[in-house]
Amino acid sequence: MNYERFRQLQMQLDLSRGKPAPEQLDLSQALIDEAGQAGYRARDGFDCRNYGLLLGLPEARELGGELLGVAPSQVVAAGNSSLELMHDALAFALLHGVPQGQRGESGQPGEPDKRGEPDERSAPWRAQGDIAFLCPVPGYDRHFAICEALGVRMIAVPMREDGPDMDVVEALVREDASIKGMWCMPLYSNPTGAIYADEVVRRLAAMPAAAPDFRLFWDDAYRFHHLTDTAHATLDVLAASAAAGHADRVLMFASLSKVTIAGGALAWLAASPRNVAWWQRCASSRTIGPDKLNQLRHVRYLRDRATLDALMARHRALLAPKFAAVDAVLRERLAKVPGVRWKVPQGGYFISLYVPPGHARRTVELAGKAGLVLTPAGAAFPYGVDPHDSHLRIAPSFASLDEVRLAAQGIAVSLLHSLETSEALAG
Amino acid sequence: MNYERFRQLQMQLDLSRGKPAPEQLDLSQALIDEAGQAGYRARDGFDCRNYGLLLGLPEARELGGELLGVAPSQVVAAGNSSLELMHDALAFALLHGVPQGQRGESGQPGEPDKRGEPDERSAPWRAQGDIAFLCPVPGYDRHFAICEALGVRMIAVPMREDGPDMDVVEALVREDASIKGMWCMPLYSNPTGAIYADEVVRRLAAMPAAAPDFRLFWDDAYRFHHLTDTAHATLDVLAASAAAGHADRVLMFASLSKVTIAGGALAWLAASPRNVAWWQRCASSRTIGPDKLNQLRHVRYLRDRATLDALMARHRALLAPKFAAVDAVLRERLAKVPGVRWKVPQGGYFISLYVPPGHARRTVELAGKAGLVLTPAGAAFPYGVDPHDSHLRIAPSFASLDEVRLAAQGIAVSLLHSLETSEALAG
Repeated sequence: MNYERFRQLQMQLDLSRGKPAPEQLDLSQALIDEAGQAGYRARDGFDCRNYGLLLGLPEARELGGELLGVAPSQVVAAGNSSLELMHDALAFALLHGVPQGQRGESGQPGEPDKRGEPDERSAPWRAQGDIAFLCPVPGYDRHFAICEALGVRMIAVPMREDGPDMDVVEALVREDASIKGMWCMPLYSNPTGAIYADEVVRRLAAMPAAAPDFRLFWDDAYRFHHLTDTAHATLDVLAASAAAGHADRVLMFASLSKVTIAGGALAWLAASPRNVAWWQRCASSRTIGPDKLNQLRHVRYLRDRATLDALMARHRALLAPKFAAVDAVLRERLAKVPGVRWKVPQGGYFISLYVPPGHARRTVELAGKAGLVLTPAGAAFPYGVDPHDSHLRIAPSFASLDEVRLAAQGIAVSLLHSLETSEALAG
Repeated sequence: MNYERFRQLQMQLDLSRGKPAPEQLDLSQALIDEAGQAGYRARDGFDCRNYGLLLGLPEARELGGELLGVAPSQVVAAGNSSLELMHDALAFALLHGVPQGQRGESGQPGEPDKRGEPDERSAPWRAQGDIAFLCPVPGYDRHFAICEALGVRMIAVPMREDGPDMDVVEALVREDASIKGMWCMPLYSNPTGAIYADEVVRRLAAMPAAAPDFRLFWDDAYRFHHLTDTAHATLDVLAASAAAGHADRVLMFASLSKVTIAGGALAWLAASPRNVAWWQRCASSRTIGPDKLNQLRHVRYLRDRATLDALMARHRALLAPKFAAVDAVLRERLAKVPGVRWKVPQGGYFISLYVPPGHARRTVELAGKAGLVLTPAGAAFPYGVDPHDSHLRIAPSFASLDEVRLAAQGIAVSLLHSLETSEALAG
């Protein structure tokens, strides 16, 4: 197939976002069909139909604790998306500040005073002038959109196969007090599939920070989403931070959106006791509690780590062939093209394809003309600008296996057409 | 019964919050038992299990439109609480500003530019220095908690039986550009049961405001919650504002929390097209969409206005006797006590009891010693301070009818004991 033939197909396919396929959603159909059977009584008899439980249903916090390897008291079980938790954590920090002052390894929360202000809270980030976040690139566009929307300057740092370039990160964080936080996706990072090495996690946990209220926004989105026989795991960053005397450094986020129902699951925040107390205080003016009926349904359906692992194996069975298909096509069509590289990740939802500088945008455009929607070139970079115009993100999860094969061909021929026509122009 | 006997009962009852009784939640048990039957396909075939539909399921927006008397395109269907929407609306205004510049009656949204900023947005409220909200008192403590948490100064204005004192409101809003908004509960206002007269709504809609980005936060929490044969309704404030040339003045909030499931229903925001576009833009970095499965369940269960009205009649049958019981006991015990007054509301969830100055806090304290938890005295005032210490809020919805009767006796004897002992001290 050449580009012209591909263009004529007008395939009307969207590979731009990491959406689960309908077959993946079918795996948890029991959550819908048998929703009534979960009833409304929590384990302790609590009526989940009524107001209350700001930090979530206790058994939903326990499930989160088991899955995230954290004490349930350090877990908040919330609504249908971890993105909301990340946005709100940053918004709360901007409006209220965050706990500050290092307490060493214990991480015990300070006693809040009677009027509602916890002790030792930093000034609201919004009141601290220009502030910035470190953004490993390529990274997750929705992280960057939060920063852009909330007016937080983004500083790109290079992502490597074992995590962010720690020499660069440490130098910046040590010197620049305006750097208040950093986005991290430790496992199967979106979109490169990077896996943070233990030493990277240890350095992130231990590095000195000029800002005393520095935070790692730790988005553990793909913690359960393996694509190979090896269930990779990253070092326990909460424990590492506490051990390094930075008990309050980490806000960990996770959800079941790509485990059960993409728009109807639940999300968790895990952090030090002081950070959880801070979250509770900030959230208490916002909500009387999450949808506990949905939490109850999830707890009764998903039960424990073993049940989740079995479910994730079924996801993998649907997903892995799609990733393999993309790899096979790219090998067939692009293996010998200079300046082109990609790597099939060991988990997560994306494949990063690197093309010769100046050809990413054009490739997306050519694919679009053929009816294949790709993630906009540059999306994986702050402000949407890929300085080399060379990175493409491929999201093969939603489409069928046949469509994925065809789409991969389409991406290859679009890139080849871009390369050929630019050579023709140059020649 | 006297206070000593009441105290010995140690009744362990909480009348502090407006929670629905279990029998009310039972009315919508079908939503739980038959949850599976709603399936996951929207009317147009959309798979509600997947990401998307930031502004909510179209049929959930339509239901909101029908119930609120607004075009569906002006309705956002969201998560499980209108409190969250109110908090976020204020937080978004603080962080991003709001649409500004009067467009007259059309309320057409401006064309957003390419980079994502709508035209004519005010400066972020946080960047505009000290800002304030008008707070009719007595009012809803959770409104005031949002202002306090977000650092918005509160200015109390008197509440009358037909709404806020408009002479005071108009004078303040006309003169003081730091006043950016006002809390309004137009129907069966929490806690007094006030019903805004048409003329009050018209004046709120039409009054000149020194701040060009002034907003009415219109919490229509009890729109469906009648306690008498008269289904009161307040004037359409969105239409009145548009007619007065202030199409963007109103942000209307409502939810089904006290219609179906208190922690597991859905909430709506209704506003001008420009405000809805603003909301969409602010929310787009926060969420990929609400829990559409729950919206679908609600739409299929609640169907239309007639179904809702029938359901609300059953709520009334459970609630009205409790309000009548409180009234009967107060009449019996307090009718002849100088300086004591109350009024049984025609809808909503609360009874306001006014006691002689200096006795509200003491009455709550005495009731507490007998095991009866009341809303803290002063809660209905900004910063928790009732300048006369004379207002009590009674929330009779959650307890059983017998408990409500006993609790009303307890409130009466606690108040009488407070009055007697202060006279004894004075004498």
